[in-house]
Amino acid sequence: MDATVTAPNPPLRVQRQREVVAALQRVLPTRSVLWHDESVAPYECDGLSAYRQRPLAVALPETHEEVGAVLKACHALNVPVVARGAGTGLSGGALPDNLGVTLSLARLNRIVHLDPLARTAIVQCGVRNLAISEAAAAHGLYYAPDPSSQIACTIGGNVAENAGGVHCLKYGLTVHNVLRVRGFTVEGESLTLGSEALDAAGLDLLAAFIGSEGLLGVATEVTVRLLPRPQVARCMLASFDDIGKAGDAVAAIIGAGLIPAGLEMMDRPMTAAVEDFVHAGYDLEAAAILLVESDGTPEEVDEEIARLTDVLQAAGATRLDISADEAQRLRFWSGRKNAFPATGRISPDYLCMDASIPRKRLAEMLHAINAMQTTYALRCVNVFHAGDGNLHPLILFDANNPQQLHQAEAFGNDILRTAVRLGGSITGEHGVGVEKLDAMCVQFSDAERGQMLAFKAAFDPQGLLNPGKAVPLLARCGELRGVVKSSALNEALNSLPRL
Amino acid sequence: MDATVTAPNPPLRVQRQREVVAALQRVLPTRSVLWHDESVAPYECDGLSAYRQRPLAVALPETHEEVGAVLKACHALNVPVVARGAGTGLSGGALPDNLGVTLSLARLNRIVHLDPLARTAIVQCGVRNLAISEAAAAHGLYYAPDPSSQIACTIGGNVAENAGGVHCLKYGLTVHNVLRVRGFTVEGESLTLGSEALDAAGLDLLAAFIGSEGLLGVATEVTVRLLPRPQVARCMLASFDDIGKAGDAVAAIIGAGLIPAGLEMMDRPMTAAVEDFVHAGYDLEAAAILLVESDGTPEEVDEEIARLTDVLQAAGATRLDISADEAQRLRFWSGRKNAFPATGRISPDYLCMDASIPRKRLAEMLHAINAMQTTYALRCVNVFHAGDGNLHPLILFDANNPQQLHQAEAFGNDILRTAVRLGGSITGEHGVGVEKLDAMCVQFSDAERGQMLAFKAAFDPQGLLNPGKAVPLLARCGELRGVVKSSALNEALNSLPRL
Repeated sequence: MDATVTAPNPPLRVQRQREVVAALQRVLPTRSVLWHDESVAPYECDGLSAYRQRPLAVALPETHEEVGAVLKACHALNVPVVARGAGTGLSGGALPDNLGVTLSLARLNRIVHLDPLARTAIVQCGVRNLAISEAAAAHGLYYAPDPSSQIACTIGGNVAENAGGVHCLKYGLTVHNVLRVRGFTVEGESLTLGSEALDAAGLDLLAAFIGSEGLLGVATEVTVRLLPRPQVARCMLASFDDIGKAGDAVAAIIGAGLIPAGLEMMDRPMTAAVEDFVHAGYDLEAAAILLVESDGTPEEVDEEIARLTDVLQAAGATRLDISADEAQRLRFWSGRKNAFPATGRISPDYLCMDASIPRKRLAEMLHAINAMQTTYALRCVNVFHAGDGNLHPLILFDANNPQQLHQAEAFGNDILRTAVRLGGSITGEHGVGVEKLDAMCVQFSDAERGQMLAFKAAFDPQGLLNPGKAVPLLARCGELRGVVKSSALNEALNSLPRL
Repeated sequence: MDATVTAPNPPLRVQRQREVVAALQRVLPTRSVLWHDESVAPYECDGLSAYRQRPLAVALPETHEEVGAVLKACHALNVPVVARGAGTGLSGGALPDNLGVTLSLARLNRIVHLDPLARTAIVQCGVRNLAISEAAAAHGLYYAPDPSSQIACTIGGNVAENAGGVHCLKYGLTVHNVLRVRGFTVEGESLTLGSEALDAAGLDLLAAFIGSEGLLGVATEVTVRLLPRPQVARCMLASFDDIGKAGDAVAAIIGAGLIPAGLEMMDRPMTAAVEDFVHAGYDLEAAAILLVESDGTPEEVDEEIARLTDVLQAAGATRLDISADEAQRLRFWSGRKNAFPATGRISPDYLCMDASIPRKRLAEMLHAINAMQTTYALRCVNVFHAGDGNLHPLILFDANNPQQLHQAEAFGNDILRTAVRLGGSITGEHGVGVEKLDAMCVQFSDAERGQMLAFKAAFDPQGLLNPGKAVPLLARCGELRGVVKSSALNEALNSLPRL
């Protein structure tokens, strides 16, 4: 990873900073503009902490109108704006621009309206994901997408990255659970996408906005769909003596017409790391385990579990445990939910990958990753949202060993290229950010990326919103192709079927 | 409706036609290019037959590659292209351009691949909606969106208009059931949007493409999601002595956390017309009836019907019938499915409106439409996809009476304005086409429409794809505002809350 900052002549930057801070102070109270080095420091990175930059200033508006005023002020000065929620993103989408303003939406944290009859909630962008479900609980409702960071991450960040979670197989990603987004264009003009109705007239730009990583506009308010909390949920643990069999079991479940509420896979090294940490009761003999959740009415859950049992046994499960009560269900999940911190305990550093593949290719992908461990002489532990084909291989390395860092990156790129070759994608739910710009050159042709940039320009002709993120400029991919000429990556590029 | 054709100097048009036909004949076999008046006549309108135009030529490519070649040829000549499926659309989206080529995709009618394990089907654009479910039936699967025209309409047209149907409350619109679209840009370059995985890298342009009414590109192949056919389905008929109570019952069902597979409403004039035609067994005493479908496992359906019964009775249902077997269920639905032809039997002409409102405003909307019958001295029969707030009021009139035609249009506009005022939209599932261009001026500000046009330009800078459809040019809305100055519409425009 290259986190080199190409700062301009410092005196020029200082002058620019004065100008920008003064403009922000004209539209915001003093408490809402940070620019001293020590106060800006907490904003210099998001969850991808390998990349760090300091912005000229951090604006902390407290109202919808103040957000518009900040954008108007920045637009007038032609200064880049990077919106930020809780900063839990894993791909560097909220990495500041060294010559830009970081626009924190953390103070817009009010639940504006919760309508149990319509089963919707209007919430400000800085509201935490979990806080929505907490507020809805009184009405027996909840907000379905549940990224691992849900206790901290904000709905605004969820919209920017189209966040998923362990239940998105059945209940969808953010894009499937958001009805409307209100906010501002780069010019500070009001923007509303979507509607409370099932459909809206005009082009459906809501889905394009969701997951656009702050490139198209800044959201201040999100209308989300709430779902009735299922009466019962039970979790099954299924063991397999071969990781490929576990992959095929996932395809067999879906092929049998079953859509579990959660369908996760962990391989043996992962369960070992986790079991040692949280004592979830996992089978340490298994080459891989599946966590399969069923929810609904008691009758529905009983029937689904009976059918799942048949499919899992036919697929060669060597052991099946079914949670007997809610406490056991939560214990089963505690392991999965702590996979990342458990990994932190067994390796000084790890690279968390995020790729998607068609689920019928799971076994193939698992075997490929296994072989790569030899190729790159590094270990990889695997935790997958298997049901929707979203992989999170965690490549273990020691960042103090430059050779290992290099190998880990090569390992990661190999996983992404393999995902694309199998008909999948370089990202499942973490976004492109700055982390996967080069991978975008692998997945998309110049014409495709040109189209994305044209689309971006239709919203933001000067490229002031979150510049340098998500969609690489054509020149970057050109350079990349130059650099890797005759290399393995280049061969991979040339051998890719054009979809 | 103004269907005036402003044709250019005829000799110039003939010259242009020769040029275009010659270019098409260079890339297509002779049988695939129509231009004689009699052979082009069947293509002069779609389901909105009040508008008619003849294209310069009709191209009937038979392969994906031929579609690309047609687009390349047209682009080279700067000639507009209007893609067409089965021509069943109700808003004039496939109305030809008098100086353009109609690109019929009817011959691309092959099911390319059906994968029961992945539960997906790759189908060419000219495949009929129902044909997908027929092919999937052998595997216990089906394609969920079921517009009334499903026996004839094509999946390509469904994608263009984001078609719905009576089951979209539970199973979603086209946009929720399509994973990937392959086709071409206006330049004839390959275009692929979406992926077989749950998510795809890059901007999510698939949803923007779906429902974009042929403005952004031409699809040739669609990957759809298939669902397992439910084990059981049963339909309830609930009678109400007041149309407002029926509307409130719909909100109560959703508010109780129930999402029926179908939730339709018909008012008394509609049931009377239908009962006379198909003898479905509807309660002719009721001011309104609801059709409520439950599907799933037998246990699930039993439980849902018990809960629905409680809610419907609490909401004041005066009679409840539950289908005892599949034959009765189909008879209950036969009335709803024949609502449009039944209306054709009781009135020489009718205007089928298509608006969406938040469902909690249903009762309010029904009372407003009732009052409009007096204002405009015309009858209106009502059939609603009540569960998702999508209304199809059918305004009865006699087109041979110019005063009635005028009143019917004014009635229709009033319904659309009221829908927007209640927080809804001017279209639910039929699209804007040419029919609702003026209504787009009511719903969206100049800035919003400007944004849509900028987005269109990012795909099609010369505006060659389906020109004059879906998004009105700013000048048109300006003129409309001028025309209606000081009129009721203008007042309505000014009183609209800006979302």
